[in-house]
Amino acid sequence: MHYEYAHGGDIYGQNGEKNAAIVDFSANINPLGMPGEAIEAAKNAVIQANIYPDSDCRALCAKLGGFENIGKAGIFCSNGASDILFRLAYAAKPKKILVTAPSFADYERAGKAAGAEVIYYALKKENNFQIEEDIADLVVSEAPDIVFICNPNNPTGNLTEFCAAEKIAAACSSVGSILLVDECFLDFVEDPGAYSAKPLTGRYSNIVILKAFTKIFAMPGLRLGYAICADAGLVGRLRFAGPDWAVSNLAQMAGIAALRHGGAYMEATREYVKKEREYISRELARAGLTVYPAYANFIFFSCPGDIDLCGELLKKGIMIRNCENFSGLGPGHYRTAVLSHEKNELLVRAIREVKTLWQNR
Amino acid sequence: MHYEYAHGGDIYGQNGEKNAAIVDFSANINPLGMPGEAIEAAKNAVIQANIYPDSDCRALCAKLGGFENIGKAGIFCSNGASDILFRLAYAAKPKKILVTAPSFADYERAGKAAGAEVIYYALKKENNFQIEEDIADLVVSEAPDIVFICNPNNPTGNLTEFCAAEKIAAACSSVGSILLVDECFLDFVEDPGAYSAKPLTGRYSNIVILKAFTKIFAMPGLRLGYAICADAGLVGRLRFAGPDWAVSNLAQMAGIAALRHGGAYMEATREYVKKEREYISRELARAGLTVYPAYANFIFFSCPGDIDLCGELLKKGIMIRNCENFSGLGPGHYRTAVLSHEKNELLVRAIREVKTLWQNR
Repeated sequence: MHYEYAHGGDIYGQNGEKNAAIVDFSANINPLGMPGEAIEAAKNAVIQANIYPDSDCRALCAKLGGFENIGKAGIFCSNGASDILFRLAYAAKPKKILVTAPSFADYERAGKAAGAEVIYYALKKENNFQIEEDIADLVVSEAPDIVFICNPNNPTGNLTEFCAAEKIAAACSSVGSILLVDECFLDFVEDPGAYSAKPLTGRYSNIVILKAFTKIFAMPGLRLGYAICADAGLVGRLRFAGPDWAVSNLAQMAGIAALRHGGAYMEATREYVKKEREYISRELARAGLTVYPAYANFIFFSCPGDIDLCGELLKKGIMIRNCENFSGLGPGHYRTAVLSHEKNELLVRAIREVKTLWQNR
Repeated sequence: MHYEYAHGGDIYGQNGEKNAAIVDFSANINPLGMPGEAIEAAKNAVIQANIYPDSDCRALCAKLGGFENIGKAGIFCSNGASDILFRLAYAAKPKKILVTAPSFADYERAGKAAGAEVIYYALKKENNFQIEEDIADLVVSEAPDIVFICNPNNPTGNLTEFCAAEKIAAACSSVGSILLVDECFLDFVEDPGAYSAKPLTGRYSNIVILKAFTKIFAMPGLRLGYAICADAGLVGRLRFAGPDWAVSNLAQMAGIAALRHGGAYMEATREYVKKEREYISRELARAGLTVYPAYANFIFFSCPGDIDLCGELLKKGIMIRNCENFSGLGPGHYRTAVLSHEKNELLVRAIREVKTLWQNR
């Protein structure tokens, strides 16, 4: 794996064995775990693994349409949200893409794989990495084929207001750009409906909303992501840009089961995560780290760049995400997931133990 | 789904519900089913679905390397063999590809998705669809970026001899073409080692061998395919052409478990399938159909084109593969899987019942 695109969550040694001793704060998975119904559904689906899955995920798409309340927009399911990023890039064949920096590396990776030049919109640290209105000017002047927005942004955590998203959508529409809004972490945020770009899909057919079961339903091992888009032609091109049987029957069955009480599960998740997020944020700040405002199930913070914080924590069995390989960041930036209270206490204790490193500089 | 690329195995209604009443001979899955150990491994892996899978499939690749005895060649695992076809096309960015016709539609689909022109090498019915030596001349004169060979060929079943594959590999090498040899059905054939292009990977780094757990280990619902290739750069480009977490943890665990007694399972499969293949072939010929030589777990045959054989069999709850949408074929060509003896008897009985259709013409 190229270092510049390395992700969190790699807890496997060179022989592929999981390091069970590590508490992994480097991947942002719902601490409540996978819903019991989804676990059961996946287990029951194993016995049917000798049958091809429905390549159109018809039953799952029907359930998702109702759950997401997307009106007439279409849904396309695939092998995780990252698979949809590559399909979109290959389908749109972009000459130029616009990404915010820092943000999730796969936008850039997918665009480059499809041969695109990458234009960066720099998020400013002094403004808590907020997207500002001038991004619309950049869209209009550069006319990129695809604009990628992550809301809340990974790894910095900042939220983009609905009205800002609307201005970006309008700018994209005016120059024929596709706007991809990645809302994979939005259901962890209080009042996600106030921030989602979903209502814009009715007015702008150039918007693709990206979501996944991965984080909110804690099933990264099953691979299930989806796109919401009102442009039926674009949905067709996403389908055609990759293989037919992209989603395993287990993921389809687990997905349908997860949605059954999905609303209540998300509510419980938000409540739990909020309390724990506030706990970790407070404790990291108390230890003297610079902690940025957090709204989802992860927290972005910084620490003097010459300290090997990841290495120190790893000695204590804790893995956090070193964010130095994100475009627009550098050494000294970190992201931690919000996990169970028990695990979060381990993190806080470990941070306290190593805090002399930056306090004695 | 575009009709020209429609596959077998779609037993789902518009609402996505499986039609359990249908006996599906349209997908070619091992009639012995998924190995019990693989079923158990997949079930046990569900509980770990809250962890990201190993994006490099390190443990699985290590096991596969030993099982396939591939020497120094590399292995790349992905979300089914069809996913690897798209990755190869996107990685190689071909201007021109060469496919045999008729053959598996996804070579053409993947090539076209990446913007390639498609050149066809016509397999001749009167020669039982065998690839002949003149394909090497076509490779040299057209210099395609990728040449796709399916061995045994889907849907026609014919085998390509090792020496013929070697000549094609040499021709490809001389003009800088990548040669993809799809051996997804080869382990169903008696003495697969005599036909596999694997030994050529040591001499020609431009060869990619495509294989899958899908058919031989009866796990299409889990999605697991792999490529064997001695060109480490090309393996890296396959990885980089799509998302990192392409293979679910369940598929990785089931794959490792399937290999544990994989050799014996394949032996038992070949023995069972041979007997049943001979039974169906004999009975279809006896009913007056034109049956082509078959070596794997499916049989290609023809029947006068104005007869709706699929429709007639479907009335009896049996689905076979109508092959009229394969490039180079037309109405009247069919493929049937070799399933369990009990199911095969249903097929034979149904064929006998409708045989007046072509015998009274």
